[in-house]
Amino acid sequence: MFQALPDKVRIREVGPRDGLQNEEQFVPTEAKKDFIRRLIDAGLQSIEITSFVNPKWIPALADCAEIGSEFSDIESVTTNALVPNMKGLDNAEAAGMKEITLFMSASEGHNKANINKTIGETLKLFGELLPTAKGRGMRVNAALSTAFGCPFEGDVPPEQVAALTKELLDMGADEIGIADTIGVANPLQVKQVMEKVLSLCEAKRLAVHFHDTYGTAVVNNVAAMEMGITQFDAAVGGLGGCPYAPGASGNVPTEHLVYTFEKMGVDTGVDLEKLLQTAQFIQDQLGHPLASNGFRAWLGKKKHAEQKAEEAS
Amino acid sequence: MFQALPDKVRIREVGPRDGLQNEEQFVPTEAKKDFIRRLIDAGLQSIEITSFVNPKWIPALADCAEIGSEFSDIESVTTNALVPNMKGLDNAEAAGMKEITLFMSASEGHNKANINKTIGETLKLFGELLPTAKGRGMRVNAALSTAFGCPFEGDVPPEQVAALTKELLDMGADEIGIADTIGVANPLQVKQVMEKVLSLCEAKRLAVHFHDTYGTAVVNNVAAMEMGITQFDAAVGGLGGCPYAPGASGNVPTEHLVYTFEKMGVDTGVDLEKLLQTAQFIQDQLGHPLASNGFRAWLGKKKHAEQKAEEAS
Repeated sequence: MFQALPDKVRIREVGPRDGLQNEEQFVPTEAKKDFIRRLIDAGLQSIEITSFVNPKWIPALADCAEIGSEFSDIESVTTNALVPNMKGLDNAEAAGMKEITLFMSASEGHNKANINKTIGETLKLFGELLPTAKGRGMRVNAALSTAFGCPFEGDVPPEQVAALTKELLDMGADEIGIADTIGVANPLQVKQVMEKVLSLCEAKRLAVHFHDTYGTAVVNNVAAMEMGITQFDAAVGGLGGCPYAPGASGNVPTEHLVYTFEKMGVDTGVDLEKLLQTAQFIQDQLGHPLASNGFRAWLGKKKHAEQKAEEAS
Repeated sequence: MFQALPDKVRIREVGPRDGLQNEEQFVPTEAKKDFIRRLIDAGLQSIEITSFVNPKWIPALADCAEIGSEFSDIESVTTNALVPNMKGLDNAEAAGMKEITLFMSASEGHNKANINKTIGETLKLFGELLPTAKGRGMRVNAALSTAFGCPFEGDVPPEQVAALTKELLDMGADEIGIADTIGVANPLQVKQVMEKVLSLCEAKRLAVHFHDTYGTAVVNNVAAMEMGITQFDAAVGGLGGCPYAPGASGNVPTEHLVYTFEKMGVDTGVDLEKLLQTAQFIQDQLGHPLASNGFRAWLGKKKHAEQKAEEAS
C-alpha cells in the first residue's frame, strides 16, 4: 500500500499565469478577474495570478498590475505572481502583491534560452532580489524549471537539482517549486530526485510542478506525495503550453489531482464540480477545447443529461 | 522507492477491438489489417484484434471473420477476440482464432445493461463456453468489467472482484483481465483490490485494464505493477469510448504506458516511434483527433521539425 499518505495537501492553481501566458487569445482583464474569483470560490487557497514580466515578452499578461491590485486585499487566499527582475519586483510591490515567485532553470541550456543568463548570473540576481523582497515583507518562492529533463541538455543530475534547491533556500527563499517544465519525468525518477532533495531540504518548504506530455503528471505527483511532498501545482483544464508546440505540454489538470487525491482520502479543500464549471468558463473565453480528459468527460456527461432532459420535456 | 519492479511486462494492444468498436466511422477491412500489421511491427506481442459479437450490435467490427482469418497463422504474436456466446465461439474457431476472451461485469447493474444477464446466468454460460473452447484447443481469457466502479451501482466490493476472479480461474480460464471500464479507479483502491485478488490468485494469470477518465490510468497501471501485475491492456492513441459520451472514456494510451515503463527501466518490447506512427495512421483513418497527450506532443514536434526544414530549404 501507500506509506503515510498525508491528511491534506495544498494545490496551487497556476492556470491564470502558466495557463494563460502562451494563449494567443488575450483574455480580457475582467474575464481574468472572474476566472480567479471562480477559482477562489471552488476552494483553491493558493493561486498564481499573473506575471510581472515585460508585456513585450508576454502580451497575454500585460494587465498584471490591474490583476495584482484586484486581489491584493484578499486575506483568505494566497496569491502570487512571477517576477523576473528588480523592475518586476517594484511593479509587483506597487500592485500590492504579498507573495512573488522568482524563476530559473536547473539546466544551463534552458536557463540561457528562457532568461538569457547563466545559472551563476541568475543566482547573483536572486542574491539582490531575495533580500530586497524579503525586506519589503514579501513571501518569496523560487521555481526551479527543467528539474527532471531539459529540452537542450536531456538529463539533469538529481544532485544538481538538490544543490540548487538548497542554495535557493539558504539564500532566503520560503518555498522552492521543483518543476518538470517539459513533462518528461517518470515516477521512479521523481522518487530518486526527491530523495536527493529531501536529504538536504525540508519537505514543507518544497512544492512540485508537473506537466502532462506523456500522461505521467498524475503518477509523478503521487510519487512525490509518497516521498512526503504536500504542495502541488496544477492548472484547471490542463491549461498551459500548447499541445502542438514542441517540448511544451499542458500542466496537470487541477481536476485530475483533486479527483485522485480526494479518492485516496487526501483532502484538497477543492469542490470538483465548481472547479469543472470554472474550466468551462475559461474554455468559453479561449474558444478552443481544453486537453483535460476529466473535463471532457464531465462536459460529455452534462451534455448527455441536457439532451435527456430536453427529450423528456 | 518502488519495490521490486519487473524486468519486463506484456502490454496487450486493444485498439483494434476496444478502440474501434464505438467509432462511428467504419474503418475499412484492409485498413484494419494494415493497422494490426503496424502494431505487430511496432513490437506489440499480444493484440485484441476483433470481436465475434452480432454485427447488429457492433457494426464497426462486422468484418470479424475476415480479420480473424487474416492473422490466424501468425506464430510470433498472440491475437485474441471477444466471444459472447456459443455462436461467437463457433465463428471465432472457424476464423482460426487460437485465443478468445469471454466478458462479464463484476457488478450486476452493468452486467445486465451490457449483456442482459445476471452474473449467475453469465457464469452458467461460461460453464458451457469455457470447457468447449478449451476442448477445441483454445486459450481462454475472461475480462471482468467494472471491477473498480459501476456506472449504475457505484462502488464494487473488492471481495466480490476477488471471488469472481478466482471463480473464473477455477472454471478453467487461463487469464483474467480486471477492468476499470469507466475509468474511475484511484491508485490506493487499485492496490486494495489487487491485494484481495492476489490473496486468492496468481499474478501471472492476471492482467489489468484501465481507462483514463480522470487522467489516472498511468498511475493505476503503475500501482498494479507495484503489486506484482506484469500484464497490461492499452490502446494506441487512447482509442476507445468517446470523450463526449457519459461514463465512457478512452483506454490508457499505449504510448503513455510504453513511455512510463521504459523510463522506469521496465522492458515492454515496443518501439515508441513506430507506435506513434501507428497512432497517426489510425487517426488519419478515423478523421478525428485522438485524445492522447503523448501522441499530440509527438505530432506537434514533428510538424515543427517539418516547418523548420521547409523554411531552411
